[in-house]
Amino acid sequence: MSDARRWFALPSPFHMKRGGELVGARLAYETWGELSAARDNAIFILTGLSPSAHAASNADDPSPGWWEEMIGPGKHIDTNRWFVICANTLGSCKGSTGPADINPATGEPYRLDFPELTLEDVANASHELVRALGIERLACLVGNSMGGMSALAYLLLHPGSVRTHISISTAPQAQPFAIAIRSLQREAIRLDHNWNNGHYDEEHYPEAGMSIARKLGVITYRSAMEWVGRFARIRLDAEQREDDPFGAEFQVESYLAGHARRFVRSFDPNSYLYLSRASDWFDVAEYAPKEAGHGGVDHALQRIRLERALVIGVETDILFPLSQQQQIADGLRAGGAEVDFVALDSPQGHDAFLVDIPRFGAAIARFLAAG
Amino acid sequence: MSDARRWFALPSPFHMKRGGELVGARLAYETWGELSAARDNAIFILTGLSPSAHAASNADDPSPGWWEEMIGPGKHIDTNRWFVICANTLGSCKGSTGPADINPATGEPYRLDFPELTLEDVANASHELVRALGIERLACLVGNSMGGMSALAYLLLHPGSVRTHISISTAPQAQPFAIAIRSLQREAIRLDHNWNNGHYDEEHYPEAGMSIARKLGVITYRSAMEWVGRFARIRLDAEQREDDPFGAEFQVESYLAGHARRFVRSFDPNSYLYLSRASDWFDVAEYAPKEAGHGGVDHALQRIRLERALVIGVETDILFPLSQQQQIADGLRAGGAEVDFVALDSPQGHDAFLVDIPRFGAAIARFLAAG
Repeated sequence: MSDARRWFALPSPFHMKRGGELVGARLAYETWGELSAARDNAIFILTGLSPSAHAASNADDPSPGWWEEMIGPGKHIDTNRWFVICANTLGSCKGSTGPADINPATGEPYRLDFPELTLEDVANASHELVRALGIERLACLVGNSMGGMSALAYLLLHPGSVRTHISISTAPQAQPFAIAIRSLQREAIRLDHNWNNGHYDEEHYPEAGMSIARKLGVITYRSAMEWVGRFARIRLDAEQREDDPFGAEFQVESYLAGHARRFVRSFDPNSYLYLSRASDWFDVAEYAPKEAGHGGVDHALQRIRLERALVIGVETDILFPLSQQQQIADGLRAGGAEVDFVALDSPQGHDAFLVDIPRFGAAIARFLAAG
Repeated sequence: MSDARRWFALPSPFHMKRGGELVGARLAYETWGELSAARDNAIFILTGLSPSAHAASNADDPSPGWWEEMIGPGKHIDTNRWFVICANTLGSCKGSTGPADINPATGEPYRLDFPELTLEDVANASHELVRALGIERLACLVGNSMGGMSALAYLLLHPGSVRTHISISTAPQAQPFAIAIRSLQREAIRLDHNWNNGHYDEEHYPEAGMSIARKLGVITYRSAMEWVGRFARIRLDAEQREDDPFGAEFQVESYLAGHARRFVRSFDPNSYLYLSRASDWFDVAEYAPKEAGHGGVDHALQRIRLERALVIGVETDILFPLSQQQQIADGLRAGGAEVDFVALDSPQGHDAFLVDIPRFGAAIARFLAAG
């Protein structure tokens, strides 16, 4: 299998927000396009919880990436003009150092000995990579979903390092509904006796817990409205049904099962737990002046300095509701940025940025062309 | 413990929609108020998935019922005027025959040998009870949530047996989002190795699966909006936290844990599976003329004959969305009933009928007073 990943060795030890440190850690990343001589055309993409660095195909890896229709020559993020970088998130399991990697102190996988991870650590690691690539200032920082929260951390921790920002289907902090969903996903994994306090292996693997976590994820990533049109009450054919009195009977159940099947063995359960918890912890209000009180989120967002920002959200998103993107847009505008706020009526819910490329692509291309 | 339950022996064998039968089955029920000499003041309440027959306190059982503020002398459903009946659902575990009861054919609990259960069976069993009480025609049939679907079955299967109807936060059929949620709840129970294909006992009990199922239920019974105001991002005090790196940290997590704790051992897991599946199966469109096609739901609803109906829904309900109550109201109106459709802005989501008694009670009292 061809591999387009490059490797960046983080400063060692790499100090983390909640007190831990990583020795000999690295980030996996990929790039598209060419960095200009003035080093002023770089776009960095911070991803959601599960994607790899392979956002799009390139010469070294022609397989389609997770944002294939968005990035490439002549596409919405046009790599004839922009130098695009995407890194696998610190703490993930797609090449960047995470709980499944070997702890050099013990020669064994970290598992739950991986230090407590925050989205600030994700942001700081990404910033180290950007600087190491010789980029003083990003032309644009893009963040999707969890990556949008990491992007806010990046902007708050590294003022002056970003010229424009695209914030997609994200939030300045998790609301209790999102915390409840993620808490339940973590519970499903932890209650699977094969999880075994993080000490699973290929043979004894928390498949049931990961399946429930993923299905619950997919339910909250899409929208009820989309599914009415897509699945209605269509039944599976007799030969598709399991011989089980409570087995799948409706198409929507087999759709969820397919999603779970593709995910369960391809993502490290401990890594999932760490990133899920980091998403709950993140709160821009921590960066507000102490006296801000309940207005903490707004005050923190106002501290961010940008030339321009594009904030996109979707009306059918139940995990990161549109009101939270509106809050980001208002906050960045109050901080002095020229802000486009785009509320889309895509039916696909939180996942729309991955599938409704026509609507998202048009907004992104328009924003980048104006820069 | 005092007990107000009475017992009704169903005709034996009791034939079920999907071909099974029950021998020696019974319903547990409670009543409030007095049946008038003309037997024309009876209100029958069909419940949601988990409630018992104890809807309100009475002389034999002064403990508060699950609709305590709604039913009683001088209350919204005024037992000085009405004779109110509430039965535990057939297939449940609060006195009516269900999978946890002894199968007279074997002397062992039914467990998964309980016949396939549908909401039509729930409706037919309830209708037998009403007739046995000497009531030819109910003054009002009330159905909440799953009970609202059972009520539609009752109305379709027993034309002329009901004068008016109150339909609360329910649907004419499950949409794919609701099916997906319930399927995942069933999966969580079934994947718990203590479930053991239905053969659990007190010592080996599917506690983890039931906990996940209940928490997922509560998440979908309430609304994200309510929780922003109620929990925000409030943390638990240090002494409330578990000594577990992924244990509960936010108030919303401990709220869910409390709900799960109260439910897990008080509801039979197999019964939960049967009633959950019955909710997915129910579809009024089965009662439409064959030629109705995609308009099946509307055509079926139009076959129902009522003098008057009250249909209530809540804007924040994600499990039974308001558009489905609107569809019921439109269908019953097209069938000739005088229909009040009340869309409430209660923040509590699907559960609002249990907690927002001022709003629901006012609508119900107004409707009953006009009768």
